[in-house]
Amino acid sequence: MSRPLTSTPKADGFRMPGEFESHGGCWMLWPERPDNWRLGAKPAQHAFTAVATAIAEGEPMTMGVSPAQYQNALAMLPPHIRVVEMTHDDSWIRDCGPTFVINGAGDLRAVDWEFNAWGGLDGGLYFPWDQDALVARKVAQMERVDWYAAPLVLEGGSIHVDGEGTLLTTEECLLNPNRNPLMTKADIEEMLGDYLNIEKTIWLDKGVFNDETSGHIDNIACFIRPGVVALTWTDDKSDPQYEISKDAYERLTAATDARGRKLEVHKIHQPTPVLITREESEGVDVVQGSQPRTEGERLAASYINFYIGNGVIVMARFDDPQDEPARQKLAELFPDRKIIAVPGREILLGGGNIHCITQQQPLGRK
Amino acid sequence: MSRPLTSTPKADGFRMPGEFESHGGCWMLWPERPDNWRLGAKPAQHAFTAVATAIAEGEPMTMGVSPAQYQNALAMLPPHIRVVEMTHDDSWIRDCGPTFVINGAGDLRAVDWEFNAWGGLDGGLYFPWDQDALVARKVAQMERVDWYAAPLVLEGGSIHVDGEGTLLTTEECLLNPNRNPLMTKADIEEMLGDYLNIEKTIWLDKGVFNDETSGHIDNIACFIRPGVVALTWTDDKSDPQYEISKDAYERLTAATDARGRKLEVHKIHQPTPVLITREESEGVDVVQGSQPRTEGERLAASYINFYIGNGVIVMARFDDPQDEPARQKLAELFPDRKIIAVPGREILLGGGNIHCITQQQPLGRK
Repeated sequence: MSRPLTSTPKADGFRMPGEFESHGGCWMLWPERPDNWRLGAKPAQHAFTAVATAIAEGEPMTMGVSPAQYQNALAMLPPHIRVVEMTHDDSWIRDCGPTFVINGAGDLRAVDWEFNAWGGLDGGLYFPWDQDALVARKVAQMERVDWYAAPLVLEGGSIHVDGEGTLLTTEECLLNPNRNPLMTKADIEEMLGDYLNIEKTIWLDKGVFNDETSGHIDNIACFIRPGVVALTWTDDKSDPQYEISKDAYERLTAATDARGRKLEVHKIHQPTPVLITREESEGVDVVQGSQPRTEGERLAASYINFYIGNGVIVMARFDDPQDEPARQKLAELFPDRKIIAVPGREILLGGGNIHCITQQQPLGRK
Repeated sequence: MSRPLTSTPKADGFRMPGEFESHGGCWMLWPERPDNWRLGAKPAQHAFTAVATAIAEGEPMTMGVSPAQYQNALAMLPPHIRVVEMTHDDSWIRDCGPTFVINGAGDLRAVDWEFNAWGGLDGGLYFPWDQDALVARKVAQMERVDWYAAPLVLEGGSIHVDGEGTLLTTEECLLNPNRNPLMTKADIEEMLGDYLNIEKTIWLDKGVFNDETSGHIDNIACFIRPGVVALTWTDDKSDPQYEISKDAYERLTAATDARGRKLEVHKIHQPTPVLITREESEGVDVVQGSQPRTEGERLAASYINFYIGNGVIVMARFDDPQDEPARQKLAELFPDRKIIAVPGREILLGGGNIHCITQQQPLGRK
């Protein structure tokens, strides 16, 4: 049975678990569009394959693939990764996919948010986005779980939760007039309460500098576990990221969570700024209405955009001196998980990173 | 895990179960193409919905749907039917889908036959058929079962098995030079042995008169259970079906099965010949290379093309005087199953019937 429900997760006793809780699996969408991924997406497909393979060490992995790419994906991916047909406009299933919720009995359901490609016709990243908008219910149908259609434009990358009533987000994204212009901050907090069972929202101001998602939280800060947060950082006061991270640090250390706890905040230094090269720019089709990939543009690189899987942390590496300190820090923060660092640049060139291209499915009864 | 295997089901101890054995579910493909289904496939979609709903009384039902029809199918089908994206060229999953096999431990695997749209460029029913050819492995991938790629052009509707080593088929289809021109009858029997664990093939000559599939067995005769067969019939000696059914009856009553049993053969009288009306013909797009739907053409109507589901028999009715005798006969032959008769004409107009548009998945461990 998989049907749209008209109640809310909160009313039905469902909550969004933290990413660090046990998973039943993980979903990704295969990259393809040549106006976003250079060289016909071949380098990105190799990068996605590495991410999927790493995550599959700990949980069942499913790759959603367009009809045109089905055979190629089946050939490129290892045989223990499930390949299913799933048309999409681009590969950011963190943002267009479902947010799964569970109840005390371990039943699984999905939340299907409204999706407008990070800003619709007022700053969105491509047009149209009609196939992305169907991904959440396609996943729910395939898994035979019921879903809630939430009347809120929201991308999964704009929220992080501790699974105990607290949500982290940014004002830059959730209060952006190109998402839900008629809703106040209080209205949005009420929706997060209804659909994720959130009691306390902690608002940062902005996301990572030049992040085209309008500052998604999942690139700047995340929960390691309840009460513990990681934050991207730089000590370079001339870097535009400095003031953003400083403000975030002040807000996080001043905040209390839904249980009244103060937060422990861990800084992870960002990599050296990553700029698009001419060769990289020239590998991308120019299409009006799609986000351009211009030579010299700074990419929103951060080590925060990792995936917490069963038994593993899958993080990006950039062949940068900060790679190893970041890896060590994550190893300290997640002592029971294997840290797998995969090349992140080709994903970053498309506008996001590992967390953005993945969506966990909590362990639950379908 | 879902991967292509290079051994054979026989070598691995797998066999194709009879359709009357327990099912884990059933698969269908949503009709869409306007050069085969009249009025943009809307009447057919209602007919398919009735079939799927009837089968879902006894087993989980999955409908594969193209990206373009996804939302419409989701809206038309009842919520307990799973809707998944699965591009196809047309809706005959009996023929392009997987044949599932099981072993003694109850493990499930799939056979992926070669598919050439009932004859390829020499008499096939449409061009291209590249998406149909991917359906079997897409189903296997979705269900996480391993599959065997069988080097034989074969449609599932051209075979019926008793699950105990016997297979029924027609020479008109399996020996047709537009299927496997380089293989002898003995070669084909060996392939059926290797991939379905068949020890004895019983060959009828032809299928139902004017059946565009080159005489698929599933429209003329089928196993009710081991040792018991149903056969379409007419007493009208002027009907071209008469000689075909008479010859089939003689071959069946003369045959013994793999266990050495004689067969009990039950005749089920065909409906009054069904002809395409002008209105029906005019509702179909004319496309060169696709089978035309011409006014006055006789359709291959038979009551044999039913589906044996968990607890149910889903049969076609044609608003014909023979409907009720056929229903009664099936009720006698299947005393433990509920007989559900659904309108069959709109499916017949597309070139097949209920068995042709369904594919059972045996109950087994994935």
